[in-house]
Amino acid sequence: MRELRAEYLAALRAYLDAPGEETLRAAYELGRETVGRERGLLDLSLAHEDALAAVLEGRAGAAAAGPTVRAAGEFFLECISAFEMVQRGIRDAHDAARLERRHAEMLRGLSAFLCDSSLALQAPDALAEMRRLVAEQAREFVAAQCCFVTTSTGPGPPARAVSFPEDDLHWRTFARWADLSPVDEVVWNAGGPVRLAGPQVAEVLGDLVRGPAAGLEIRGWLGAPLTALGGHALGAVHLVNKVQGEFTALDEAVAVHLAQMSAAAVERAQLYAGGS
Amino acid sequence: MRELRAEYLAALRAYLDAPGEETLRAAYELGRETVGRERGLLDLSLAHEDALAAVLEGRAGAAAAGPTVRAAGEFFLECISAFEMVQRGIRDAHDAARLERRHAEMLRGLSAFLCDSSLALQAPDALAEMRRLVAEQAREFVAAQCCFVTTSTGPGPPARAVSFPEDDLHWRTFARWADLSPVDEVVWNAGGPVRLAGPQVAEVLGDLVRGPAAGLEIRGWLGAPLTALGGHALGAVHLVNKVQGEFTALDEAVAVHLAQMSAAAVERAQLYAGGS
Repeated sequence: MRELRAEYLAALRAYLDAPGEETLRAAYELGRETVGRERGLLDLSLAHEDALAAVLEGRAGAAAAGPTVRAAGEFFLECISAFEMVQRGIRDAHDAARLERRHAEMLRGLSAFLCDSSLALQAPDALAEMRRLVAEQAREFVAAQCCFVTTSTGPGPPARAVSFPEDDLHWRTFARWADLSPVDEVVWNAGGPVRLAGPQVAEVLGDLVRGPAAGLEIRGWLGAPLTALGGHALGAVHLVNKVQGEFTALDEAVAVHLAQMSAAAVERAQLYAGGS
Repeated sequence: MRELRAEYLAALRAYLDAPGEETLRAAYELGRETVGRERGLLDLSLAHEDALAAVLEGRAGAAAAGPTVRAAGEFFLECISAFEMVQRGIRDAHDAARLERRHAEMLRGLSAFLCDSSLALQAPDALAEMRRLVAEQAREFVAAQCCFVTTSTGPGPPARAVSFPEDDLHWRTFARWADLSPVDEVVWNAGGPVRLAGPQVAEVLGDLVRGPAAGLEIRGWLGAPLTALGGHALGAVHLVNKVQGEFTALDEAVAVHLAQMSAAAVERAQLYAGGS
């Protein structure tokens, strides 16, 4: 710690005497080298405070302190930026690995559920439970505000499940009253995933995002069809509004995967329904 | 770089003057702080060479150099260990994230294949292609030396695919001649995954790992059943010998997941075969 303070003071002095790329480089190095220390950021801040005090003391009675303080601030900022950058790189790598592992676990859990014999036994509500689970997991997986899962396995309107922020009245209203038939059509006609952003949302979905969506801004939509092996439609997964930003190509791939898993489960359940 | 050399020299001198935990700590700090530098390891080595030369020069004519060189070597080793440890931590996190992403992509690719309409159309060899793909991917996924996928969808012996090191005659012989029926039985009777290690392998698998396995050491086996929604057996995935170490609980979870995906595909294909 003593070395850091001494180094920081020397580097700051050099920068104040001759501000420039080269002397500022020392700030970058100091910041980078402090990564991994137990109290890295605190040590840097203390070193800065000490160095600034020492520098100002040495100039007492001379020129105004303003420019010196500002220049020292720039030096400190460079130092902190380097620290942050490296620190973030390490943290991001750890976070990314953890998230991927969590997703892999979720997929395995969902797969196990979709292979559960309750679907074969036509247990009451087994398909309803499946829709609910897929809606919840898909919503978490791609970080969407809302997810609908529809299945259509016979005459009559499709059955559906929806996952949304339970405590939000706007979403509750939308989840309950949104008529998904036009957007189911869009996805089925596309024969594959449909990803809408910006003005496309209103253009393609029209009334759906105007009526029951009052008070909500529907700014993104990602739909993927549940398709039978023979090609006919079995339902769809619809994701509404990525929590941050827009749905990505990876979100689309994930939605397609979940739709494929769901379609397999629906179709297998039908196999047993037909045979019984 | 100049600062690193000066610091290294000062820290090494302090250690040689009073070897101990505290002075050795400086080596650790130097190593850790050098992580992220473009030529970190090279810089450390150069700093060590310089410092050692300077230290020995200062002692010319004095005591024998041996103990000094050894002590300096310990100091350098501590320095390098710290560097390696932090460097490895960062690399491991990146590698782990990359591997997880690759696995997620593989799963999506396999899922898409298993939903392909060729399975519905009873395209010739569609099921054979499925077995081959699952065997290859399962083997890569859990880093096994060999993987069998068997499917049994009617009377007659199960069909199978196998993935193994193609250029190894022992594995080629084993892949061709191994009679999997007893191990299929073991997995089906277990009604879930079976993971064998050490002496269990020979105990449970008996002749299978003695006869055609001549020249191979079968030291691990991981089997997972392909189960119909209604509960009956459709086949199995068998993984033989983890490349390094033993099969883990995670490997088992992955094998179960791949077996579930395969079972869904086999059963859906049967649905269309029955209907045609």
